[in-house]
Parts: sequence; structure tokens; C-alpha cells
Amino acid sequence: MSKRKAFEKPVGMRDTLPLLYRRKQEVRKRVASVMEGYGYEFLETPTLEFYETVGEASAILDQQLFKLMDQQGYSLVLRPDMTAPIARLAASKLYTGGYPLRLAYSTNVFRAQQREGGRPAEFEHIGVELIGDKTASADAEVIALMISSLQDAGLSEFTVALGHIGFVNALFLEILGNEQRASELRRFLYEKNYVGYREHIKGLSLSSIDKEKLFALMQLRGKENVIGQASELVQGEKALQALKELENVVKSLEVCGVMKSIKLDLNLVSHMSYYTGVVFEGYSANVGYPICSGGRYDELLEKFERPAAATGFAIRMDYLLEALPELQESRQLECVIFSEERRREALAYVADKRQQGKKVVMQELSGVERIDSYTSRFKEVTYLIGAAGRDNR
Amino acid sequence: MSKRKAFEKPVGMRDTLPLLYRRKQEVRKRVASVMEGYGYEFLETPTLEFYETVGEASAILDQQLFKLMDQQGYSLVLRPDMTAPIARLAASKLYTGGYPLRLAYSTNVFRAQQREGGRPAEFEHIGVELIGDKTASADAEVIALMISSLQDAGLSEFTVALGHIGFVNALFLEILGNEQRASELRRFLYEKNYVGYREHIKGLSLSSIDKEKLFALMQLRGKENVIGQASELVQGEKALQALKELENVVKSLEVCGVMKSIKLDLNLVSHMSYYTGVVFEGYSANVGYPICSGGRYDELLEKFERPAAATGFAIRMDYLLEALPELQESRQLECVIFSEERRREALAYVADKRQQGKKVVMQELSGVERIDSYTSRFKEVTYLIGAAGRDNR
Repeated sequence: MSKRKAFEKPVGMRDTLPLLYRRKQEVRKRVASVMEGYGYEFLETPTLEFYETVGEASAILDQQLFKLMDQQGYSLVLRPDMTAPIARLAASKLYTGGYPLRLAYSTNVFRAQQREGGRPAEFEHIGVELIGDKTASADAEVIALMISSLQDAGLSEFTVALGHIGFVNALFLEILGNEQRASELRRFLYEKNYVGYREHIKGLSLSSIDKEKLFALMQLRGKENVIGQASELVQGEKALQALKELENVVKSLEVCGVMKSIKLDLNLVSHMSYYTGVVFEGYSANVGYPICSGGRYDELLEKFERPAAATGFAIRMDYLLEALPELQESRQLECVIFSEERRREALAYVADKRQQGKKVVMQELSGVERIDSYTSRFKEVTYLIGAAGRDNR
Repeated sequence: MSKRKAFEKPVGMRDTLPLLYRRKQEVRKRVASVMEGYGYEFLETPTLEFYETVGEASAILDQQLFKLMDQQGYSLVLRPDMTAPIARLAASKLYTGGYPLRLAYSTNVFRAQQREGGRPAEFEHIGVELIGDKTASADAEVIALMISSLQDAGLSEFTVALGHIGFVNALFLEILGNEQRASELRRFLYEKNYVGYREHIKGLSLSSIDKEKLFALMQLRGKENVIGQASELVQGEKALQALKELENVVKSLEVCGVMKSIKLDLNLVSHMSYYTGVVFEGYSANVGYPICSGGRYDELLEKFERPAAATGFAIRMDYLLEALPELQESRQLECVIFSEERRREALAYVADKRQQGKKVVMQELSGVERIDSYTSRFKEVTYLIGAAGRDNR
């Protein structure tokens, strides 16, 4: 390890300078306003949680967790997502009023990165959790809310891929016979490695009919008709139940009028083990990763000793900002440069402007290093310098 | 170490539930609006920084730092304050436009705690840094801004104690002769242990005149006249220079019309080594700790290889909220309970309400666990259930 230079930051850590800060703030405000309109209530949880509870319950791989030891010797993590902390709260302090609970958050989450120049290790998630509602209406609500949020953020073109992990799991189990083989195959879909998926199937000792069914899964992308096609690949109750659930969500989404933004994708596997029902991811043409994702997770709450159905989503603020058009922001700040003897006059002048909602720097002349480069950053500069009464603009 | 229960949180970690979240958000908005009005620009820095750079430059004791090792083997800290990270930025990326820079932040900082039930280990700081301006005007500006921020947050009664660490240091050095003895005595003031201060002085081998001077320091609290009294205790250039600076700040604050909120306190020692000039702390009668504090720190920037004068303050959001009157918030949320066949009608009904800016939960009847306890949380509940056309309110 070499000595760090004074300006360096840890791998994956970023500064948010004022212009980006304002863009983020504006987008956050718009998205939060949609979520609040739907009756979701914002809350915050600590940055640090116990590894043993929230760390292990989270959907994030162990090697991506930032871990540390507290002064009492317990292993802590920087929260890798907000779903597990909210489940902790929903199962304890917030339970008193009974389910369902509609909760929202906008906060940074942490994922350790291996290399410089890679993905950020700290980024903002803004999202919701709808806890204690098992209906397809709940899934449809969070999907419709996600779509509204993206629209109100200013995103005009995007697609939401919608699948059902229960269908994939049931299909694989029907054909492959055991969970381990199902899990091996599922990993290819999780990694979106479709070539590997095909090659893996070719190497399996299965009837050609079964292989065709597994290949056919890859084609189950499109509009509502893929649900019918999917039902021809399976026989068991579980798989058909999953398709029925998906159909109900689609029906609700049709009534909500948002199906034009949605593409069914029955080979969508968002996570290896976390989700239990519908899963979905939002894409924008100009960003290489999903800008938001979510799904039903009916087994998380029991880790906090109060089993309950749940569904939700999170938007990645950095990817959403990448997808949105750049704001062309004009200079907003005004500046009054004053000298000592005209302080009172300068104060009255800026007080009046600030009263009107303007942003005005009041700067004593002798505090400025280089007046030309300093004043070049402002929209307007007023000089109140020298003998009172002369106003040098 | 016993096994953690699922609901537990690490020492000093708190959840912010919706009601408190809304209070915080409202206060944050008000304070941020004052800071922006003064032309300060908000930014964000990473939660994690290198121990070797920002960790060591911060004003926080080593044992209060949360430390961890990254995957590259470097020692990291959770930022213990925002002043050092902003100094890092102001000395690098933000320097291009020349000084002064006016920067603001509202973010969580971290201080490890030893015991359960003690102070929070994570809390929000909202504050500003004015970098590259050595004038008394700059100090007066941040003090006036802090006072405006408290007022606009809704705090009606508070006092700001204002001192000058340069005066204390020079007085001690004049009388005690060396830095180590000065530092020993300064610690009593830093810990606000005034009995210990007196006892310590009694035990020193000093002339009774010198002892009287050190005792007299304790009396230097009050209005502008204490500056004159202070000047009688010292002879050296440094001490008189410090008093001159303080006097200039007071003059500016008088013009700003905020001296009524200020009490001079020449034995105020806010930190053992961080500050170099004026120091100040804000108090509210009903809170046991300073709710905000700040001062001039002209030696920090050189740790980031670009020496510059600087001054600023931070407000502790949790203490400020404690000082403010409780908001009596009435229930805000409305709820529409609907059944499947009336989904379309329910959607149109809530869309209209949300359009008017109302917060409306739309809940399918079959998703509710216990209807009575569920609906009791809302301001208004509308039922759209059963055969269409009948509207059961």
C-alpha cells in the first residue's frame, strides 16, 4: 500500500458537485411527490446495521457488503439496500396499526467494488415497499407507481420488463427434477448469459421435448399472448398459479392504462433467491443497466419474525439521471461586492433581493483573491464600493 | 457476544419514522432556503473517506471514528464531519474559479459511541463553509447566517456564545510560558470544567497577579465591554490582534442587527486544536448541548495542499428539532377501499384527488388484514365496493 494523496477517495466513492446536486434534488422532489400522492410515507433507517440481521437478510452478495466491527465487537454492515431495514421496521415498531403499510425512502446504499473506474460503491435508491398485501393489485400498484415516477421525473422513453420468478422456478423444477439443477440453469438467466443457457441445456440429459421447452422459455417475451404460450410449457399447479398471478397483475395494469410501457419477459430473473412472485426492471435506451427494479418478496418478513407478503421497487438515482436529458441551467447567483464603509447599504440591498427569493452573495471586496475570475461566475454583479451614495454597477 | 435479536440496531443507531421524517424535512427545507438565499451552494461528498486524508484532518477524536478496511487494504472512515471533505473538494475540483467559495451541506455524520442509551452515533449536520476569505466580514456573515437559519427554522429563543480561541491561546502562553502547560489548562475550558480550571490554577507556581488574570478570564462573558476588559489582561501582539479581530466581527454583527442574540464569551474553547480564530456556539434553553457551533479554521486547507482561510458552522438537526416546539400534525392521508370490479372507478376517483395535490391511498379490500384498525389511521375513507354505482361512504 502506497501513501494516499490528499485528494483521493476510496474505490467507487464520488463527490456530488452543486450542479449535479441540484439536478438530483429536483428529480428526487418530483419522484417523492408522486410516491406521497399514492399515500406512501417516507422514513429513514441507520446507515449501519448488524450483519447478523439486516446484512444477512439483504438481497446483496456477501462480497459486496462493506463490513466493520463496532466497539462492542459486533459485525456491522453499511446498508446494501433499504428493503431489509424497512422489513425490520415493518415487523416491529411500525406494525401496531396493522398491514398493509406503504413506505418510501430516498437514501444512499453501499456495495463494495473491486476496481477503480468501475461502478459506484455508494449510490442513491429512491423507492417504496408495500408490506402486508398479497393481492395482484398491490403488485400492479407499485409497477404503476414506478412508471408514474419515471414519467414525472421527465423520462419520456422507457420500457418495463415484467416476469414471474415463480413460473421460471416451477418450469425448471418440473423439467430438471431438483432444486440444484434448477439453480444452475437459473444462474444463466440471472447473469443474462443466453448463449451459456443454450449451451448448458444442450449438455443436459433430457428428452428433446424437454429441451425444446427450455429453449422455448427464451421466446416468452412480448405482449399478453406470451402468458398463453407459457401455459403450454407447464403442467403443475405451481407454474399455472404463477401465470394466473401474472395475468391478474397484467389485468390491473391494463385498467391503470400503463401496459404500453410494459413488455412481458418470462425469462427475467432479477435475483437468485430473493423474489417469490412477479419481478420487473425498467430500461431506458441510452443506459446500459436497469434504471429501476423490483418485485414481490413474500419470504423476507419472516426473517424478522412476522411473516407477511410484500412488494416494492427501487429507482437508481444515478442511472435515472443518466437517462434524463441534461438540464441547461443558466447562472442563478447574483453578487454584491461591497467595501467596509458601505456594509449597511449592502445589507439592506441584499435583504431586499433575498426577500424576493433571489440568491445573492454579499462579498466584502478585501476578501476576494482575484476579482475578475471571482465575479465571472455570477449572473449579475453589483459594486457598492467607496464613498457612500455612488453606486458603481 | 450473544446472538443479536432480529429487531436490534447497533449502538447509537436510530430509525426516523414518518412523523419525525416530515418534521426534519420541513426544518431542513427552511434552513437550506436561508443558506441558498445567501448564495451558498449545496453539495455531497462520499460517506467513506480515507483515514489517512480526511480522517486525520477532521476535528474528531480518533476513538470516535468508525473505521473499516476496504478490499484494497486501505483504512477508511465514515465521515465524522463535513468540514474536512469539503476542504478536500475546495482545494481540488472546486478551486478553478478562485476563492472565496460558499458551500453548504445537509448530511449525516458518524461518531462511534461507547454505550447503549447514550448519544446518537449517526446524526444530521446542516451547515456551511466559507472558504478563502480571511476578513471579519466572512465570520460575521456565517454567524448572521446561522442566526437567520435558526430563526427561519422556527426557533424563537436562543443565544450564541462568541469567543476567540486566539485570545485564549495567547493569554495562556503569555502567562504559562509553554504550549504544553497552556494545553493542559485549555482542556478544562474545552470540557467546561470550571471548578477543575480554578483548582488547577491554584496549584500552579505563578504570581498571584498571573493567577488573578487566569481567574479573570472566567468573568469575560457578556456584552461588547468584555473586549476592553480582556485587553487589560494581556500585553502581547497576538492577544491584542485576536481581540481586534473579535471587535471587527462584533462591529459587523452590530450592523447586521443580530447582536441581541449574541453573548461574548472569551473562555469559549470549542475544540482542542482545530479552530484558529473566532469560535461560537448556539444554545437553546431547553436543550443541554450546543445546537450548533462553528468558527474560523485557517490551517485545515493546507492539509490538502492549498492553504486558505476558512470559516463556517454546522447545526445539529436532532438538537435543533429537540429545541423546536412539537408540530401538531393532523392526519393527512385519505384512503379509497375498493373491490376488484370497481377498480376503474376507484382509479379515476383517486387520480382526480391526487391531481389536486391530495395524498390518497388506494387499497383493494381483499388486501387488508383487519379493516377497522387499518382504516383508523386515515383522515377520510371512501368505500367503492360491490356492484358499481353504489357509493358506500
